[in-house]
Amino acid sequence: MRAQVRPYELIKAKRDDRALDAKDIRDFLSGYTRGTIPDYQMAAMCMAIYFRGLSSLELAAWTEAMLQSGQVLDLSDIPGIKVDKHSTGGVGDKVSLCLAPLAAACGLRVPMVSGRGLGHTGGTLDKLESIPGFRVDLSIAEFHQRVRDVGACLIGQTDSLAPADKKLYALRDVTGTVDCIPLIASSIMSKKLAEGIDALVLDVKVGSGAFMKDLSSARVLAHTMIEIGAQMGCQVVALLTDMDQPLGRAVGNALEVAEAIDVLKENGPADLTEVTYALTAEMLKVAGIASDDATARGMIKRAIHSGSALAKLEEIVSSQYGDPGAIREPARLPTARAMVEIPSPGDGFVASIDAEAIGLAAMALGAGRDLVDGRVDPAVGLIILRKVGEGVKSGEPLIRAHYNEKKRVEEAVARILHAYRIESSPAAPRPLIYEHLPARPRDPARSKAVKRQKR
Amino acid sequence: MRAQVRPYELIKAKRDDRALDAKDIRDFLSGYTRGTIPDYQMAAMCMAIYFRGLSSLELAAWTEAMLQSGQVLDLSDIPGIKVDKHSTGGVGDKVSLCLAPLAAACGLRVPMVSGRGLGHTGGTLDKLESIPGFRVDLSIAEFHQRVRDVGACLIGQTDSLAPADKKLYALRDVTGTVDCIPLIASSIMSKKLAEGIDALVLDVKVGSGAFMKDLSSARVLAHTMIEIGAQMGCQVVALLTDMDQPLGRAVGNALEVAEAIDVLKENGPADLTEVTYALTAEMLKVAGIASDDATARGMIKRAIHSGSALAKLEEIVSSQYGDPGAIREPARLPTARAMVEIPSPGDGFVASIDAEAIGLAAMALGAGRDLVDGRVDPAVGLIILRKVGEGVKSGEPLIRAHYNEKKRVEEAVARILHAYRIESSPAAPRPLIYEHLPARPRDPARSKAVKRQKR
Repeated sequence: MRAQVRPYELIKAKRDDRALDAKDIRDFLSGYTRGTIPDYQMAAMCMAIYFRGLSSLELAAWTEAMLQSGQVLDLSDIPGIKVDKHSTGGVGDKVSLCLAPLAAACGLRVPMVSGRGLGHTGGTLDKLESIPGFRVDLSIAEFHQRVRDVGACLIGQTDSLAPADKKLYALRDVTGTVDCIPLIASSIMSKKLAEGIDALVLDVKVGSGAFMKDLSSARVLAHTMIEIGAQMGCQVVALLTDMDQPLGRAVGNALEVAEAIDVLKENGPADLTEVTYALTAEMLKVAGIASDDATARGMIKRAIHSGSALAKLEEIVSSQYGDPGAIREPARLPTARAMVEIPSPGDGFVASIDAEAIGLAAMALGAGRDLVDGRVDPAVGLIILRKVGEGVKSGEPLIRAHYNEKKRVEEAVARILHAYRIESSPAAPRPLIYEHLPARPRDPARSKAVKRQKR
Repeated sequence: MRAQVRPYELIKAKRDDRALDAKDIRDFLSGYTRGTIPDYQMAAMCMAIYFRGLSSLELAAWTEAMLQSGQVLDLSDIPGIKVDKHSTGGVGDKVSLCLAPLAAACGLRVPMVSGRGLGHTGGTLDKLESIPGFRVDLSIAEFHQRVRDVGACLIGQTDSLAPADKKLYALRDVTGTVDCIPLIASSIMSKKLAEGIDALVLDVKVGSGAFMKDLSSARVLAHTMIEIGAQMGCQVVALLTDMDQPLGRAVGNALEVAEAIDVLKENGPADLTEVTYALTAEMLKVAGIASDDATARGMIKRAIHSGSALAKLEEIVSSQYGDPGAIREPARLPTARAMVEIPSPGDGFVASIDAEAIGLAAMALGAGRDLVDGRVDPAVGLIILRKVGEGVKSGEPLIRAHYNEKKRVEEAVARILHAYRIESSPAAPRPLIYEHLPARPRDPARSKAVKRQKR
């Protein structure tokens, strides 16, 4: 048996662009999780990875070590294909709220471990918690039961899934190594693979409100996650979708739940509806339930028309201790005390809406948080009355702000006015979906390896 | 006043190749020294510096912050020019033992803070301690008094000089960031500038036994230190000298002291004598005592012929509690119990002697240490009987090993035989001194700044 390589030798190897062995990577990461490898060695390693990257074999070993740092769910006793969707995050991105019930209504099992909002981006958990009584802190056993019996369950990250990721993320956050594609990709994939899924659909957002500001870096991130999936025996497909303006018209927790309900009633904004349908169709195809896009779209439309998707959302809400009446009557969702409309400063067409600035405006009203443990106000937020390409006259409202505290409005208004660019002629529309990146065939050897670990 | 920049923002700035402000660098390093900036942030910063480097302004700020982390000696009350020499380390490098008394005999003041041997390289302190009674642990006040009254004093690094360097070096050692030129250069220069010197001569070693294996990296390191000197108001010149074979013929502590005494008696090996003279001449020139090389060489020869350089060594030894009788009669230095000669395996000419392998052979006998707090045997070592270019017949001795423990000889012999390459025809001789890099003019503004800090 080969002797264990010293941590500083591994750091130097990565620094000098020499390939790391899978066993060495596992030792390094498991040592870090156990605390035998200190933060300063991991910090140096992450910075070296920032500059040198990770090969696909290194990435698989890194992700697997993160995955194996905690519990890996075994959902194999649940019949059906387990598929999740992951979005890299954006403003007004309530797709999960529409997609999880829709996919479950089409026969998929959707085990979804989601995050909270931070900074300008919202989080699925915060949105769900605006539904009275809704609980995201279910145990793994409760989660398992609901995926089996309801078809979908949405919970928060627990300490038992990929705990190495939590520790590593906190370190990356303070050492300038957050925006590093291999580390982002392995962080996402380790958490998703811990859910016990068979396949994964990625929604990689691109634009002013996204983490990836340009198409090429979004493409690299998506390819990196697809590659990890192939190495780890999980089918992964990706859509690159627009986040240059907010998705839909609602930004803020209860407002977004209401908009998601509209989508399931076939009454939602066109862009949100299309992104939801496109991602759900990918889930149905990657699961093998639909052979092509037309078949998938047909299944989706039936689930909507029949009301079964909306009924599934009610069922999910009930099963997670929420009030299903709030789904039937969205007026029962929390509402803000006051509203104000922000008028356009001029005539013309909306040329662009800086999605990050809109996210920060909603955060200023209390809809988001700037610290991990900050509180959010479920009722406040923005309704975007004019989106990109739409015409507006001076004094007509661009946005309606729902607020509880008057003192918070001023900053939000300033940010909103700053976010809008109005021009005299309409801009060429941006695509909503830029690219579809197909799954790579699984490596059969690796697939077996993952199965073995799940036991 | 500008708000303090957050540490992770500075790490990101360096990572992204944006210039760091001098104040930010000072805050970062002083925070690290105080412990408010943790090891993991410094580790990430060092790795970012490994990839991005430091500009000359950044380097000056970094070095100054290291310097200001501790005491900066003020030797301004001592008449004369205070000049030190620093070598990047090699095998058989006993130049400091000859040069300090020689330069002092020529009228310079030589405040020399030296290091211990580690790995294959020897250390001046270990060599000095082979002189019975010699103490290198003098207080700063005792050091000051001897530089003034004797003209030279050689002590070990104290906790009061550049303590940030000690902390940072320990971190670099375990995070793969030792072999990084800006960090090496600032480490050396912060310790040297803390000595209160007016000028510094660098001996940057190049070759198999040196830290810098090739001329171009040695040149970059030398230029970097010269640049720091210029920014910090200290005249720095450098010679790039050969360390592809050991310097002189002795490797081992007491053996090297004896060889240094030979040089001061005009009876030393030609290469060691020439490197000693060349570096001393640089000290005399940079101090302005000699206007050109011929004048400097004349002063050096007079100090040797007159016996004043040797007398100065006795005086230094006495003033540091050592036995000056050991200088007059080197037979009183520690001697090993036994000797063995290692015969040549063939006829021919010595084509090369791997200096690092010879250093490791001497270490195997006990002359060096592989851990910072290991002990060394002052008596053991090697006498190189055949150097590069010299002819040898099969069975004639290449090296004489002085040893105390028979069990240690086998490894040393194997390393020695591995170190030698014998070929049928003599190789073209390598130069002893590759390059002379002159001082850069001081920046007058910076010069004042350094003076102000010394108060």
